[in-house]
Amino acid sequence: MRLRSITAILATVLTCGISQAQTTQGNLADDFKPSTFNQPGQEYPQVNSQGYARFRIKAPQADSIRVSLGLGGRGGTKLTKGTDGYFTGTTEGPMDEGFHYYHLTVDGGVFNDPGTLNFYGSTRWESGIEIPAHDKDFYALKSVPHGHVQQILFPSKSTNTSRRAFVYTPPGYEKDKSKKYPVLYLQHGWGEDETAWSNQGHANLIMDNLISENKATPFIIVMTYGMTNDVRPGGIRNFKIDAFQTVLTEELIPYVDANFRTIANKAHRAMAGLSMGGMETHTITLNKPDTFDYYALLSGGTYNPEEMAGKSKPKLIFISCGSRERPDGVNNAVAALKGAGYNAVSYVSDKTGHEFQTWRRSLHQLAPLLFKN
Amino acid sequence: MRLRSITAILATVLTCGISQAQTTQGNLADDFKPSTFNQPGQEYPQVNSQGYARFRIKAPQADSIRVSLGLGGRGGTKLTKGTDGYFTGTTEGPMDEGFHYYHLTVDGGVFNDPGTLNFYGSTRWESGIEIPAHDKDFYALKSVPHGHVQQILFPSKSTNTSRRAFVYTPPGYEKDKSKKYPVLYLQHGWGEDETAWSNQGHANLIMDNLISENKATPFIIVMTYGMTNDVRPGGIRNFKIDAFQTVLTEELIPYVDANFRTIANKAHRAMAGLSMGGMETHTITLNKPDTFDYYALLSGGTYNPEEMAGKSKPKLIFISCGSRERPDGVNNAVAALKGAGYNAVSYVSDKTGHEFQTWRRSLHQLAPLLFKN
Repeated sequence: MRLRSITAILATVLTCGISQAQTTQGNLADDFKPSTFNQPGQEYPQVNSQGYARFRIKAPQADSIRVSLGLGGRGGTKLTKGTDGYFTGTTEGPMDEGFHYYHLTVDGGVFNDPGTLNFYGSTRWESGIEIPAHDKDFYALKSVPHGHVQQILFPSKSTNTSRRAFVYTPPGYEKDKSKKYPVLYLQHGWGEDETAWSNQGHANLIMDNLISENKATPFIIVMTYGMTNDVRPGGIRNFKIDAFQTVLTEELIPYVDANFRTIANKAHRAMAGLSMGGMETHTITLNKPDTFDYYALLSGGTYNPEEMAGKSKPKLIFISCGSRERPDGVNNAVAALKGAGYNAVSYVSDKTGHEFQTWRRSLHQLAPLLFKN
Repeated sequence: MRLRSITAILATVLTCGISQAQTTQGNLADDFKPSTFNQPGQEYPQVNSQGYARFRIKAPQADSIRVSLGLGGRGGTKLTKGTDGYFTGTTEGPMDEGFHYYHLTVDGGVFNDPGTLNFYGSTRWESGIEIPAHDKDFYALKSVPHGHVQQILFPSKSTNTSRRAFVYTPPGYEKDKSKKYPVLYLQHGWGEDETAWSNQGHANLIMDNLISENKATPFIIVMTYGMTNDVRPGGIRNFKIDAFQTVLTEELIPYVDANFRTIANKAHRAMAGLSMGGMETHTITLNKPDTFDYYALLSGGTYNPEEMAGKSKPKLIFISCGSRERPDGVNNAVAALKGAGYNAVSYVSDKTGHEFQTWRRSLHQLAPLLFKN
């Protein structure tokens, strides 16, 4: 992947996830409920069964509040002030299923919605809303055995600090002290950090559910900060992989192998990433062909047979995106890889864009394919 | 402790942590730096070496922004609007050392400062600021071996859900598979949740540093939600301990003992809590005298010999508060307990109130006393 395509990926981050299918409120269903990502006890924002979102913000002396979510190109959703000092409003159309970042513009200043939890995206903690998806069951919190997600602080000589990562250990990890596990290194996108895959991605719940149904081999997931936002000044075009590659392959992987019961070899190690994390996955897997045997790019570019020539074939190449992105690019790349003898799999998430519902579904598709052969 | 004293504790939560020692800006030191709890790349809020805090918020069309931090009784700090669309202002006086919650009131609406991280307090995610303390070294992130903090989801039949807790395991926990550890159950205060002790309390770093200096026996810390905020309607006076006591003693403790390498007996189990978590500790330790052998109340009431009569003596009773709270009450209670033959220890945090610096210091004092005898 070239730098050109990195910026293309980033451009799509800026488009809103609103569906173009329906833009009238003529038949608005009157079944609005609090979003599942609201703060405890907060009634707003709300979502209805059609995917519309409704907001309510108190600011008695303010003149204007706008929500960044809404139809592309129209500046989001402008709220209307009522006599009770609350601003209210509903998106003009239904939103795509799944998670969306957003913020408020209050009299020209950017603030978060006090009703919702915050999620790290766009290099800041932003408000988040969840539009209930028809397939939300696969990442629901269920009464099944749960793995743990732990924060580790690992020493990093190259950056002269202790760095943070989150480690998912599957259910039962603490019980059978002799069992060893393969490991997936899973990267977030630009503007996000190591909290994204657990908080907005529900990676742990996706794995708990798959494992409880015997649909995936239990494995460890390691999520750390990809240093994707540390590129100022100079901008994203100046991003160099070297610093993160050193942290990942020379510091984090040895720490994980020393502190967790891993199967510490290439055949039991995978790397995946979304968006700019896919770019990182692409570059590092090719730079370090003896480290990983499973590669996955989620809305994060493609591999082509030419750049892989002369290297040993990985056990799996998984490439995905949302149907509102560039599914032809994904499908064509996988066809070319298959034609060249690679075990390549494509996945296109239906009716989603460059957002977390695409990546939740991609992980759900990817996990059963890992460490099977 | 009676319910009367619970409400007394809560009342003190509402007082601001500003020092009364100096309320003039006449000799304001010009060494303002970003608070350590700012979001990545954010220059404001800032703090200076005297403990003053300075704020800068963009809201070009707003009329009024007020910061909730400031001198008590004066409604916090009113910011002044500049021609550049930014509101700025500095607290009238120096703040107490350590962590403070705050929020903004923008044209009558309550929002968080977009410059800072959020911390769960007052039953919502609030902005936080850190005033550098003279003793900040004991909770600094250092180049020492670090324990892990992991999120667990444990099954709770009594509440019919999976509940969250965070578990600190000390450095080396993953390496020696035969070693077993004592456990401290550590509770947050009213308005807070299970994230407080790690996020704003730095409990993990306090322990990492103590253990690296051989000043504390390595032990596990378990932090879960004390259900302290689930009392609406009816208010805090209607709080009943039963639901949380069941979750803690019949569900969480068995889960932790089954899933971590604990020494699963009274002699190796402690309970501590801050503010309303102290009230919970007080009640549960007395209700369940065979469960814990170390009791600690941090700004959370006291024990008296009369209520403990007829029960086996715990190995330690630790009672603390800030010097701006009721140190006489703490010291008198500990004197009475000692007089009745209890191993009781008091601690008063100098020049701090009902805030996290008191509780960080209290944990730092308490930890070396645990599991030593």
